[in-house]
Amino acid sequence: MKIDEAAVPLIVPNPGEPRLTERVAGIDQTGAAVEINVTVERPLTLYLNAQEIVTMMTIGDYPEYLALGYLLNQNMLKYSDVVTEVEYHDDLQVVVVRTEHHTNFEAKLKKRTQTSGCAQGTAFGDLLEAVESVALPQAQLRTSWLYQMTHTINTMPSLYLEAGAIHGCVLCKEGTPVCYTEDVGRHNAVDKIAGWIYRHGIDPADKILYTTGRLTSEMVIKTVRMGIPILVSRSGFTAWGVDLARQVGLTLVGRARGKRFIALSGAERIVYDQKLAFVEEESARHKRKGEGRDE
Amino acid sequence: MKIDEAAVPLIVPNPGEPRLTERVAGIDQTGAAVEINVTVERPLTLYLNAQEIVTMMTIGDYPEYLALGYLLNQNMLKYSDVVTEVEYHDDLQVVVVRTEHHTNFEAKLKKRTQTSGCAQGTAFGDLLEAVESVALPQAQLRTSWLYQMTHTINTMPSLYLEAGAIHGCVLCKEGTPVCYTEDVGRHNAVDKIAGWIYRHGIDPADKILYTTGRLTSEMVIKTVRMGIPILVSRSGFTAWGVDLARQVGLTLVGRARGKRFIALSGAERIVYDQKLAFVEEESARHKRKGEGRDE
Repeated sequence: MKIDEAAVPLIVPNPGEPRLTERVAGIDQTGAAVEINVTVERPLTLYLNAQEIVTMMTIGDYPEYLALGYLLNQNMLKYSDVVTEVEYHDDLQVVVVRTEHHTNFEAKLKKRTQTSGCAQGTAFGDLLEAVESVALPQAQLRTSWLYQMTHTINTMPSLYLEAGAIHGCVLCKEGTPVCYTEDVGRHNAVDKIAGWIYRHGIDPADKILYTTGRLTSEMVIKTVRMGIPILVSRSGFTAWGVDLARQVGLTLVGRARGKRFIALSGAERIVYDQKLAFVEEESARHKRKGEGRDE
Repeated sequence: MKIDEAAVPLIVPNPGEPRLTERVAGIDQTGAAVEINVTVERPLTLYLNAQEIVTMMTIGDYPEYLALGYLLNQNMLKYSDVVTEVEYHDDLQVVVVRTEHHTNFEAKLKKRTQTSGCAQGTAFGDLLEAVESVALPQAQLRTSWLYQMTHTINTMPSLYLEAGAIHGCVLCKEGTPVCYTEDVGRHNAVDKIAGWIYRHGIDPADKILYTTGRLTSEMVIKTVRMGIPILVSRSGFTAWGVDLARQVGLTLVGRARGKRFIALSGAERIVYDQKLAFVEEESARHKRKGEGRDE
């Protein structure tokens, strides 16, 4: 059954939501009193059926998408598992994902805890295996979409612009953001996107994923698991991220700022349809104000 | 026994080390061929005695410090545990920390795996408890040290300047770096510092910790566990990071760039001994070239 994606509510940052930032008093370099907005982080404990999985630090805005996306991206939940319910208990800071049958992951965990203790170690090997067999769809990245996309993201109101100290992930169709998530951890922002895609049955094949963070092996693996053929970042690369992207034919574009970008994998999807003379360099106003290193 | 800290070898970035970066070919926005340096990340699997703990992604430069620091910062190893050996197997990408007796953590893990599966969730609660009882030492943060420190860090050769996509953590005494670590994850960089402190019996009381990353609850908890009274970052804050810092009296200084900084906790340790007129604004040359968002 084909989903009517136009009917799915878009997700955009909600910097006005009072739960997401806090006003904090301090002093500056002259000793003068100042007040600034800071991002809130709160613990959220995730259960898969009766199994406690992890406690995550999150801004807490989309616990259901985060829970589903985390489980999918860690390969603890398969796309073939039937999720019957996602319960979020705001007072307990707990989210429970219930499936029709016990998942493969729970069985695996029981067997392995005796020998390997924490499932985090073994999960990564599983993820790599799962990624290596993926075939990504054909797709285009028109440079006109790329510039429209980065310009829109840099100028759209966000928690980042409000309080800083946050990462963003944006799922785009052509040049237009359809799901823009933010969180204190880059991994949370991308997991929320995965949860949104899964919950609404969105087609990943014609989408582009943008991240403010670096193009590491983890980001590449998650993008590939979601079935998205193109990953773009304003930040840099790691060597393993590039290797994995090349293995599976993911288009990997980094250092995308103003006119500039570098593609280190899957460049055959890029269509140079934008005259560079009409693209602005990133102005100081569009630069990320609280910039740290490029993660 | 008082350690002679001057005899402990300093740790500085080693951007010339060929194992840490890789030359990768790609194309730029004009379609022209380019070659850039990218940071290498590799998996490292950590064992505590016979117990597999986790697989970490790391640049791989100080596996022993990383292993010890990870275990200490996760409260899996106590400062009172006697470490008999740290074995690193380069070919297997494995590091094994051996202790005289089985650790408390291993006993805990055995008991808990039946009910909570992965130890990651419960570990965080333990960490919070451990932090709440800490009393940090009295100390000073002279603004002259702060400016000397940030200037030195911004201009010292590093993997960051070489290849980007990396985080740095720097332990300083007064204005001088004594241990400057880098890694693909901020948590690894700080864990290596913890391992270095532990291995050499360094006194944390007169030290200042600098991070390129954000001042989250995780960074605050790790700093407090190491017994360091002052934490500085060029990036921003999260609300919980500020709350925790205030609870334990950690001095928390963020957005430290050029002349500017903001202190949101423990400002009583700050001594304004530097005339601001003599401090340079951060020049474009000293700005982090690959800046992404502030993590």
